[in-house]
Amino acid sequence: MRRIKIIVSYDGTNYCGWQIQPNGITIEAMLNKALHKLTKENILVIGASRTDSGVHAYGNVAVFDTDSTIPAEKFAVALNQKLPEDIVVVESQEVQACWHPRYQNSHKTYEYHIVNERTVLPTKRLTNYFVSFPLDVEKMREGAKYLVGEHDFVSFCSVKAEVESTVRTITDLEIEQSGNEIKLRIRGNGFLYNMVRIIVGTLVRVGRGFYGPEEVKKMLEAKERTNAAVTAPAKGLVLVGVEYSETL
Amino acid sequence: MRRIKIIVSYDGTNYCGWQIQPNGITIEAMLNKALHKLTKENILVIGASRTDSGVHAYGNVAVFDTDSTIPAEKFAVALNQKLPEDIVVVESQEVQACWHPRYQNSHKTYEYHIVNERTVLPTKRLTNYFVSFPLDVEKMREGAKYLVGEHDFVSFCSVKAEVESTVRTITDLEIEQSGNEIKLRIRGNGFLYNMVRIIVGTLVRVGRGFYGPEEVKKMLEAKERTNAAVTAPAKGLVLVGVEYSETL
Repeated sequence: MRRIKIIVSYDGTNYCGWQIQPNGITIEAMLNKALHKLTKENILVIGASRTDSGVHAYGNVAVFDTDSTIPAEKFAVALNQKLPEDIVVVESQEVQACWHPRYQNSHKTYEYHIVNERTVLPTKRLTNYFVSFPLDVEKMREGAKYLVGEHDFVSFCSVKAEVESTVRTITDLEIEQSGNEIKLRIRGNGFLYNMVRIIVGTLVRVGRGFYGPEEVKKMLEAKERTNAAVTAPAKGLVLVGVEYSETL
Repeated sequence: MRRIKIIVSYDGTNYCGWQIQPNGITIEAMLNKALHKLTKENILVIGASRTDSGVHAYGNVAVFDTDSTIPAEKFAVALNQKLPEDIVVVESQEVQACWHPRYQNSHKTYEYHIVNERTVLPTKRLTNYFVSFPLDVEKMREGAKYLVGEHDFVSFCSVKAEVESTVRTITDLEIEQSGNEIKLRIRGNGFLYNMVRIIVGTLVRVGRGFYGPEEVKKMLEAKERTNAAVTAPAKGLVLVGVEYSETL
């Protein structure tokens, strides 16, 4: 029995997220199915991030155990032949049997893509949040500064979240602008349920002038979910990658 | 009877191009159908650019004639309610009855999107040409310089093209690079069948080192279609817009 780690890229548009659902096709289910076709074993993958319905990934991480004799590095190519074109295994390698994608120290990086434009461009509709009102990016950057560091992010997580601690560390939060495209890049040691999308929803309200950048600080200090802003749509969010500090 | 000009943006992925086909759904057919639903008239739109299957547009231009009393500026919103989400009418306005989107002096701007990466990222697969071999962008820019200006572009058009003259003027051809993304932007007073995609295919070969930038000059001078390079895939191409020099 070997444990194989894979890096998985996907367009989340046509899936009900990562995690297996009773109704609806998920990324996890597609990977299990492809592994069964390939090995005839009943394999269940374990993912690093259970991304929501409609959320994309450049590099989510998963592991699975197999008795197959397929060389570890060949799984990527072999799986891609069994997967639809909106899911791609970027690479595969063997890891230690105890290695788990969620129980290691790690940092995740997400990007959130906004187009600040009145009209939705069809080619960009599935991977961007179109905001028709003018956004003041400098004000958004000011608000974002309050979120960097170790904080209790309970004001910025969904009420659905059930976790022991809501303290997380955001190591980087940068906002790039290029023409009408605005890209938020956020890196941290963990994110609560809907946290990135709520942060984006809040900063968009700052950008629109609904409230000043310093309101972000007040929300953080209030430690109440209901004080925070709306959740930005799933389609603008992409999990860029997961970095692990331990060696494999 | 009034003539209405519309600007149309679309994701070409699910269409057999602009022009009506006996088999397969086209942008033109979808617009005619939406106009019929809206006005009950049998309206046929005329487009500025008959983009190929899989090619996208931020702003193609079309006109149609109508007896409807709908205000010209309201057609955009009204049509969007009858159109699928991958076709959007950006704006609508009345023009003179003799105004024709193909018989006016105009300049068209296209963009061609390349990702220089070994692995195809699913979220970008429908709007980018993934080139897995390293590209030398500086060499591509050198080759591109030979194409700017008035030339006989017969070497850079499909054998299927049936036109009186193959002389065209390219006013601008710029290549931008940002990380692994390469964007060609080309503006001219007209383009032959497949001309932009053949130019891109040629410059990609220059970028890969198949031949030097000066070969582009030789191809242009050879005036033989068979000497030119392969046609780059449709999905990387987007018609950015059409500018008309006359006032409406």
